[in-house]
Amino acid sequence: MPLWGGIEAGGTKFVCAVGTGPEDVRAEARFPTTAPEETIGRAIEFLRREGGDALAAVGIGSFGPVDPNPASPTFGTITTTPKPGWAHTDLAGAVRRALGVPVGFDTDVNAAALGEHRWGAAQGLDTFVYLTVGTGIGGGGMANGRLMHGLVHPEMGHIRIPHDRAKDPYPGCCPYHGDCFEGLASGPAIEGRWQARGETLPADHPAWPLEAEYLALGLASLICTLSPQRLVVGGGIMQQAHLFPVVRRRVQELLGGYLQAPAILDAIDAYIVPPALGSRAGVLGAIALAQQASEGLHRAGR
Amino acid sequence: MPLWGGIEAGGTKFVCAVGTGPEDVRAEARFPTTAPEETIGRAIEFLRREGGDALAAVGIGSFGPVDPNPASPTFGTITTTPKPGWAHTDLAGAVRRALGVPVGFDTDVNAAALGEHRWGAAQGLDTFVYLTVGTGIGGGGMANGRLMHGLVHPEMGHIRIPHDRAKDPYPGCCPYHGDCFEGLASGPAIEGRWQARGETLPADHPAWPLEAEYLALGLASLICTLSPQRLVVGGGIMQQAHLFPVVRRRVQELLGGYLQAPAILDAIDAYIVPPALGSRAGVLGAIALAQQASEGLHRAGR
Repeated sequence: MPLWGGIEAGGTKFVCAVGTGPEDVRAEARFPTTAPEETIGRAIEFLRREGGDALAAVGIGSFGPVDPNPASPTFGTITTTPKPGWAHTDLAGAVRRALGVPVGFDTDVNAAALGEHRWGAAQGLDTFVYLTVGTGIGGGGMANGRLMHGLVHPEMGHIRIPHDRAKDPYPGCCPYHGDCFEGLASGPAIEGRWQARGETLPADHPAWPLEAEYLALGLASLICTLSPQRLVVGGGIMQQAHLFPVVRRRVQELLGGYLQAPAILDAIDAYIVPPALGSRAGVLGAIALAQQASEGLHRAGR
Repeated sequence: MPLWGGIEAGGTKFVCAVGTGPEDVRAEARFPTTAPEETIGRAIEFLRREGGDALAAVGIGSFGPVDPNPASPTFGTITTTPKPGWAHTDLAGAVRRALGVPVGFDTDVNAAALGEHRWGAAQGLDTFVYLTVGTGIGGGGMANGRLMHGLVHPEMGHIRIPHDRAKDPYPGCCPYHGDCFEGLASGPAIEGRWQARGETLPADHPAWPLEAEYLALGLASLICTLSPQRLVVGGGIMQQAHLFPVVRRRVQELLGGYLQAPAILDAIDAYIVPPALGSRAGVLGAIALAQQASEGLHRAGR
């Protein structure tokens, strides 16, 4: 029985697992993201030890931006990240050379989307969005049954949304765009605006209606652009489960009845949902990437 | 040699053609969109007369919203349009019953996208956007090599974009959303804001920098969401060719160097382009839809 290795390579921590799916995770490890060589070395050591000879392939869902195009000479690298030391790191190549197995590679959010498609809240769908709202805002998903790539890969956190500066004078925290979606609605934006981390703020704090407004504005634009069959929204901020009903109602209001789809008009509770795999979507999706790679599909969903 | 019929069903006019492609249009007709029965009757009469026994299939690219899902009982209908008399019109069914041939059916913009993919500015791409900016703003295109549908179909004109009311107090003209992308940047928005139709305004009129700003904001969000390999932008407003260089530069500024793609950083003149088929993209795309339908692909790109 072959085993697959998954690496969820995050900007603050790496999560690694060996197994075949959510009911069969043989081993798991998590450690902080330090220097590239040290961090990747720990992941390789874990996969070698826990996977042994049964390790058939590895999948990596990585923070980015990344190069997920298998036809590119820089496939499998983290490209222009501002994270010190990590720009132009050949993550997939290092793992492949060390372990001698096929390596699937995609963005962290596309990996999570694949996990949700395989085992979670997006089963049976061909077009959906997976969005994470936390330290940053990242989005991926499937269109026409395959993971979204296009020119590079989606950067849904960087769409522009309306920002009423009279109501919210906070200028936004995105180093590239100021008050883009991520700049207004990520965890650091909440902290910058209210001088307190989101998880310390009570459910009746004014931070949350504003956060729900920005989330609804972002989701409404994603809906109009992609016409997804569902939006799976995870990440640290969405641990505030009280956000979901407020966001759902506000998305309906913003769409104003224009999209005459029962999924939106009548069943929005099943349309905008948390990940069924919870915080394990990323690493389980990496295992699904590994499985695809072992089947010769070197690029997730291709 | 089979012939295909194409119908570009617009809210103000219908364009019909019989042929096999851009170099082989045997006959073409255009007439105003009046009552459904009369208008569809004229299209059927034209196709019957010009196609004769050689007519193998018909493709329809329609104004909407439409139901483009061949598995749906209302496939091929215009659904909830506010256009008087046209809501719930079974356009594809009427043509199929009258002519007895397979009928392909999609949105007007997806048809135009298919035309550009087959013969125009999107050849060889698997993920791109086709946007039309005119009486409304509509967007479609391909993701992963197939026309975009998802839950219903994209409604890219209705994304929300930043609107600085101090700089532009015009409230927007979208009956559903006020100042969405279409509400701020469509032809009627220009006319409502400046009390003059766009085509009467000189190239140095202040209408155009504002229009370019809104177009750039919309395109930047589409780029971040979909990561298209190209954006093909047509429609009446884009006849103002001076808009293109301004929009391209502003898109680069808005993206702020975040997307490290040569197509955007170094070759944006080939990244945001007018349709190569010009105003014929729609009806030629309808012919391409017909060709797919005659090959048993009842839904474009499926």
